[in-house]
Parts: sequence; C-alpha cells; structure tokens
Amino acid sequence: MDAIAAYDEISARLRRIGALEQVAGFLNWDQETQMPPKGGAQRAEQAAAVASAIHDLAADPRLGELVAFAATAQGPDAVNVAEAGRLHRRAAKVPPALAADLARTASLGQEVWIAARAASDFAAFAPTLERIVALKRAEAECLAEPGVGGYDALLDGFEPGTTAAELDTIFSRLRPGLVELAGRIAAKGAPVPTVAGRFPAAAQMALAKKLGGDFGFDWQAGRLDLAVHPSCSGSAGDVRITTRVDEADPQDCLYSTFHEVGHAVYEQGLDPAQALLPAGMHASMAVHESQSRLFENQIGRSRAFCRFLFGEMQAGLGGENGGGAGVVDADALWRLVNAVAPGFIRTESDEVHYNLHILMRFDLERALIAGSLAVADLEAAWNERFLADFGQAVPDARRGVLQDVHWSAGLFGYFPTYTLGNIYAGEIHAALRRDIPDLDDRLTAGDLGAVLAWLGARIDRRGRMVPPRQLIAEAVGHEPDERALLDYLGSKYAGLHDL
Amino acid sequence: MDAIAAYDEISARLRRIGALEQVAGFLNWDQETQMPPKGGAQRAEQAAAVASAIHDLAADPRLGELVAFAATAQGPDAVNVAEAGRLHRRAAKVPPALAADLARTASLGQEVWIAARAASDFAAFAPTLERIVALKRAEAECLAEPGVGGYDALLDGFEPGTTAAELDTIFSRLRPGLVELAGRIAAKGAPVPTVAGRFPAAAQMALAKKLGGDFGFDWQAGRLDLAVHPSCSGSAGDVRITTRVDEADPQDCLYSTFHEVGHAVYEQGLDPAQALLPAGMHASMAVHESQSRLFENQIGRSRAFCRFLFGEMQAGLGGENGGGAGVVDADALWRLVNAVAPGFIRTESDEVHYNLHILMRFDLERALIAGSLAVADLEAAWNERFLADFGQAVPDARRGVLQDVHWSAGLFGYFPTYTLGNIYAGEIHAALRRDIPDLDDRLTAGDLGAVLAWLGARIDRRGRMVPPRQLIAEAVGHEPDERALLDYLGSKYAGLHDL
Repeated sequence: MDAIAAYDEISARLRRIGALEQVAGFLNWDQETQMPPKGGAQRAEQAAAVASAIHDLAADPRLGELVAFAATAQGPDAVNVAEAGRLHRRAAKVPPALAADLARTASLGQEVWIAARAASDFAAFAPTLERIVALKRAEAECLAEPGVGGYDALLDGFEPGTTAAELDTIFSRLRPGLVELAGRIAAKGAPVPTVAGRFPAAAQMALAKKLGGDFGFDWQAGRLDLAVHPSCSGSAGDVRITTRVDEADPQDCLYSTFHEVGHAVYEQGLDPAQALLPAGMHASMAVHESQSRLFENQIGRSRAFCRFLFGEMQAGLGGENGGGAGVVDADALWRLVNAVAPGFIRTESDEVHYNLHILMRFDLERALIAGSLAVADLEAAWNERFLADFGQAVPDARRGVLQDVHWSAGLFGYFPTYTLGNIYAGEIHAALRRDIPDLDDRLTAGDLGAVLAWLGARIDRRGRMVPPRQLIAEAVGHEPDERALLDYLGSKYAGLHDL
Repeated sequence: MDAIAAYDEISARLRRIGALEQVAGFLNWDQETQMPPKGGAQRAEQAAAVASAIHDLAADPRLGELVAFAATAQGPDAVNVAEAGRLHRRAAKVPPALAADLARTASLGQEVWIAARAASDFAAFAPTLERIVALKRAEAECLAEPGVGGYDALLDGFEPGTTAAELDTIFSRLRPGLVELAGRIAAKGAPVPTVAGRFPAAAQMALAKKLGGDFGFDWQAGRLDLAVHPSCSGSAGDVRITTRVDEADPQDCLYSTFHEVGHAVYEQGLDPAQALLPAGMHASMAVHESQSRLFENQIGRSRAFCRFLFGEMQAGLGGENGGGAGVVDADALWRLVNAVAPGFIRTESDEVHYNLHILMRFDLERALIAGSLAVADLEAAWNERFLADFGQAVPDARRGVLQDVHWSAGLFGYFPTYTLGNIYAGEIHAALRRDIPDLDDRLTAGDLGAVLAWLGARIDRRGRMVPPRQLIAEAVGHEPDERALLDYLGSKYAGLHDL
C-alpha cells in the first residue's frame, strides 16, 4: 500500500471519528438544554452507542497498520497521522465494553448529580460517583505505561504530553503568589460594590448576543441558549454556547457569555481545510481555556472594556423596567466585576481565588484516581481542605463537593487544564499588550478586531499543528510560565485597591 | 455457542443499532428546528458517520452467525432475532460507502431542497435529486432479489412484507370511490367557510400543548417545537414533535399537532421492556400513519370532537386580541375543518383528495426508481398528472413538485404507506365505534381515555410482535381493506353536504 492511499484512508476514518465526537458533544448539549425529563435512560444508551462507534473505529487494528504505511506524510497530514496513531494506541488499550460503560455511566451520572445537587445531598450521588471513579480507575490502569501513571494517562486525554508532576511544579510557584495577593486585598477590607435594579431576562440575552458578536461570534455558525451551567460545544459551522440569567445580576449572564464566546470563537476559527481532522481541532483544553479566560477576564474585566460595557448595558438593559448598568459609572462597573471575596462556588470566583479552587480539585481527584481517597470520604476531605485554603466552613454539599459537573461526567484530569489555561491567558494577554500598543483605546471602543486577528493567526488557525505548550510559546515568543498571570493580577489589583 | 448467549449478544447489538437510529432521527430533528445555517456541511458528515456505524453493526457477519445460533428463541426474543436477521441481510447487500453516501446526500439534499422550494426553482434542486435518485436506484439494485423488485425492496424498508403490486390492488379499489365522492361534493358547490380573527402564536402553541395532553402526549417524555414542516421523531421517553403557526389560521397549527401527537403517543406507548429492540418498535410506517390520521381526522374532525374543540379554542385563543375559535359555533367549526376543495398542497388537503395526492406520488416515484422517468422530466410529468387528477394547472414548483421533503431526504417507498395508513385508520375507527358505543359522548367531553386504552393494548404495546397487516387484522377482527375508509368518508360527507 502506498503512503498516499494510506493517508486517504486514515483521513476518512479520522473524519468519521471527528463527526461522531461532534455528535457526542451535541447529545450532551441537548441533555443540558432541552431534553425531556424521561429521556435520560435512552440518552445514556445513545451516548454509549456513539462512544462504542468511536472506540470501534479508533481501536480497529487496520488504523494502526495504515499509520505505519503513512509515516512519510508531511505538514498537516503528518499531524493527522500522528494523532491517528495516538488515538489508536489509546483506544486499543481500553476494552470496548469499558468504553461504552464509561459513556453510559457518565450520561446517567449527570442526571443523578443534578438531582443530588438540587437536594444538596452528597449521599444520593456517592454510589454513582463510586461507579464512575471505579470505571475511570479501570480506564487509567489500561492506559498507564511505564513512566506514565494512571492520572497522567487521563490528563493526557485533555492536555497531550503534560504530566501531573509538571503541573505540580508550575502550580507550586503560582500558589504562594495568589495566597499573598489575596491576603493583601483582604487586609484592605474594601467594601464589595452592589448592583441595583431588575434586568429583564430577554434584554440580558439580547445584549449577550450583541456583545458576543462584538467578541467575534458568528451567529450564522452557532447558537446561544439557556442552561443551568454555561458551556460550549460543537465546532466550525455549528458551535453552541449556553449561559444563564439572574434578573438581579446581569454580570453573571454577560461574563458567562464572554467566557463561552472565547471557547466558541476559537472553535469557529479553526482551519476549515482540516475540518473534522486533528490538525483542524483545538490544541488542548488548556489552550481552549486560555481563550475563554482571556475574553472573560483580561479583556472583559479590563478598565478599558468596562467603559464600553457600561454604555452597552445602559443602552441594552435600560428602559421602563429600570435596569441599565446597575451602577453609577464605568469605574464602578470595573470595581464591581473585579470584586474579591472568598466564596464557595468556583465558577463565581474572582480571578485571585479561582485557581485555588482548581488546585484543590486537582489534588482531590488525583487522590481518587490513585485510590488513596475513597468516595465515601470525599465530602469530608473537601470540606477540610476548603476550610484550610479559604478560611471558611462549607455550609452544604451544593456549595461544596456537589458544585461542579465534571466528576459526574467522568471528566477526571480536566480540572488542572483550567489553571494551565489561566497561565496561558496571562501570557497571551501580555503579548497582546506588547503587539497592540493601543489595545485599551480599542477596547474602550468595543473594537476586538486586532485581538481576534492576532488570536486567529497564532492560535485558532494552527489547530494541533504543534503541541499545546509549543503553540503558546510560539505565539508569545517565549516558554510560558506563571509570572505573566501573577504580574497581571498584581498590577490590576494594585490599581483597584491602592495596594 | 448456546442460544441464550447468542440472544444476549444479538440483543446488545440491536440496542446499539436502535440507539444510533434514535441519534440519526434526532440529528434530523435538530436540522429542521434549530441548527445554525452554516452547520449543514458538518451535519451531513455527522449523519453519514452515524449511518456508517449502523451499517457496520448490521452488516457485521458475526450478527448473521449469531442469528443462526439463536433460532430457538421464543416470543419477543424470536421477533428480535428475526428482525436482526432481516436487518443483517439487507445491510450485507449494501456496500458501506453507499450507505454513508446515501445519508450524507440526504442530509445535504434537505438544505438544497429548502432553498429551491423557497425560490420555487426545480432546476436548482434537480442535480441534487438526480444524485439522490441514482443512489437510491443503486441501493434498490443491491437489495432486489428474485421476485422482489427494486422499488419493492425500498418499500420493504418502511412497510415490511408489502409489495407495490399488493398496494396497486387495494389502491385501484380506493381511487374510484374517492373520485366519485369528490365529484358529488363538488356538484353541491357548498361555500367554503372562512375564519375571522387573529390568533397569537403563543396562545396557539399553548393550546396545542394542552390539547396534545388531552390526546395522551406525556410532556415529561417529549417536546413540541416550531418547524417549517410538522414532524415527529424519537421514541419512548423522548419523542419530539414539531408544528407550525399561522396567526390567521389556528386550525393549521392544531390539526398538525393532532397528527403528530398521533405518531408521538404511539411511540410513547411502546413496550418499555423491549426498549431499543425491534419488538418494542413501531410495526411499520403505515401503522404509524394510521395513528396520526386517526387522531387528526377520524377523531379530530368528528362532529363530536369539534364540539369540545370549539370550547377549547374559545377559552384558549380568546381574550383581548380577539381570536377565539374564529367561527360562530361548533357546527361551523366542524364544517370548516371538513371543507373539501382540490388544492395543490398534499399536507393541507382534505380527506377526500389527500389520497389522490399519494397515489400520484406513488406512481411518479416508482417510475423514477424504475428508470422510466428521468429527473429532468419530473416537473412536467408532475404537472401533467396533477392536471389530469385534480383538474388544475400547477402554478409553480413550490406548489407542485417541490412541495414535499421526502425525495430530498431519500425517502422513496415511503409515500404509499400514507394511504395504506389511512386505510388502516378507517378500519381502526370502525372498530373503535363498535367497541366504544358512547364514543361521541366521550369525544364531546374531550375524553380520549377509552380510545387510548384500546390503541395501547391492540397497537402500541404490541410493537413488531406480528407483521403490520396482521397487527391491524387482529386489532379490528378481520383482514383490513379500503371499504371502512370509503364508508367513513361517504357517511361523513353525506351528513355535511346532504348528498
């Protein structure tokens, strides 16, 4: 068999896998936005059947043979061949029944978690979580290799080539800076600003859509819907984001939308010539998160953008029902969206505390996968650690161990990519400030064009052409580390609180 | 291998196929209700990938071997084994690339058809239809066997065990009765009643949902959404119907909903113990259509039900925006929803003309599959036949050859099941009148309970336990034929028009 024929067959198989992965994501989106209550059982079977189809394609020995024939591929083709090899090696280690069971249990797990969270009852979720952890430990054992531990093997599914030990190194440098900054801010005791008014849901959604367009979302290639948990799924011509609405707190809807739009614009900006192929897919979850956090925080919470946003909120949320921006001026909005307070909920957390939540989840989930922490002891371990890290006693499971969807969906190894993504966002932000000297003027005018062009060329279009860490290094001009993020936070909060 | 182990493996494989078929239907529902405009290309790849996964499972030689081992299965197990054998034999004859190409082309075809229909431009659709017809002819050729022609093989996918020759026999007895009745009604020259008022979309949808519940739809196990074309997809715990709204014509929304609710209640009533297995699936498309037409016509357009509906419309569509039922009394509503006029659009057609539309489509699509009619000549053939059958010249392609979605979706062999379904609905209606003597009193009260219980036990719960024609025969107590439908129509229109 010649290399060209082998590549053609590999790419056809990869496109099928890519399309089925989109279907899997779409089933999950539907489950979170609109599936009727009694649809859960058959949705789990659908998710399992799609996962089995993906697994069958990836584990097929023929794919491994084809990869050997196509070893001379160049450019994006070489990336696709290498990714086909990686996919195949991983899938071939996992028994088909385990792959199906993982998907089925994760789908059912989300329904159980939603009910347990609503009742703030960890005991109602624990048996399901035990099953999920057992399956993930079995998967990790299948995937582990000499030199690659079980947790690392799971992490590799989200952040290729990154190990927990490497993350430990960078996180151990990040943590003291965050703790020290949080302490200095707390010592200042600045009052937390509040919002006044009611902001009708329809007006919030309309403004979220308008601002999403300003951030580059192509509404011909995606949707915005309501869900309990903001999320982004899909790719290229069909990217679906969700947000939530609190009529007393328009910032929640808007900043959730900015975050998800960051993910979405990345997916919409991938190379269409490599559609459904790895070279045209997101580089890693940390790179994904760098885009969402950049939009939400470094851009969305900047003083310059808040000037633009204040006007947009006054125009879009005002009118006879009151509303407007809910604060007196743009500077008050800037202070509001950068308020620092140790809370219980990760997704509502300020930029200083956010990564402390992640570091805690990272340690807990490693212990679950290692078997050194039992699910039965998880709630106590969570509450103990939270008290130590945040100085507050967790009042209930809803605001504690049940707050995040990830473990119910079997996503172990995912959490640390959030903090790595924040670190990457810090680097990208510094590079944007360097390369676009008038960035603040542009943000004040609501003009994201230069930012989008920068990201499109250096991140989006490159897909998986190089490993994620290298992608960021080439985009910003040096090896990424935690200092840009810490410098950004230190400088911002110095300005806010006169530290 | 023992028979029990073989059956377990067969049923596991059938459940995977069943779940993937639900996914395929769901992708189509999404495409018609909410997919963003640029999602079409990757949706086609998703549809092709799911179709390929189904085809791979069904064509797997292992499934054929297992069927041989499980030959001693009894009861529902025997039905599932037989259906596994049938699925396998059909799939094994079709090359995998053809199966994928059919799904891809059908998905893309719908997008092309929508645009061509909006522009009323058959030439814009013809190249796509040519490709679809070529693929369906290739599929039919693969599936044909000695004694089973190509069209029959396609028909068998929708109406197992039924041949075009059998349908010709029963349709040739139906047609003269319909033509004669249409002539007698036309000779009376009764004025067509009209509706007065505006009926807000939200109120129509709320009433449609309320009445859907009266007809037995479980809203915990399904949804109602808007789409250009009313449809029903999904099964069991997740059945999704769509309807449309015209603020000048509430009957369009309501009767479209009654029709789709008929399909939906059938799917919701299947045996949960046989979930995702053939024994727990709809018997055939004609049986499906018998349920939708029964709800829409024999029940929904009955004088007794119109009394109930008039009150519901007055209550649900009234209020400050005017509206109400749009006619003076229940009898006027009954006359309105039973008005007879030869129109151009099948789905808006009265009960007398409806099947003449179907008989025309049946003949045209057989000629396309046989190769005796070229796609290039289809529009002219349509218009000529329409003039002959309906006495009217087709004004444009939108109201002619482009009006139906089926051919764009590759659904050849589907149309005649509509008329067979109407014939079955006629038989079921006669049996309901026999078995529920106070049916009219119940319908006047909006009480469908006895009807639903009758259908649940005799149709829904039986799934595919016996072939479709036998199912109807056992439900009504004799072999079904066209006379019950003709008697029902003759009697109803005699009452309406004093014939």
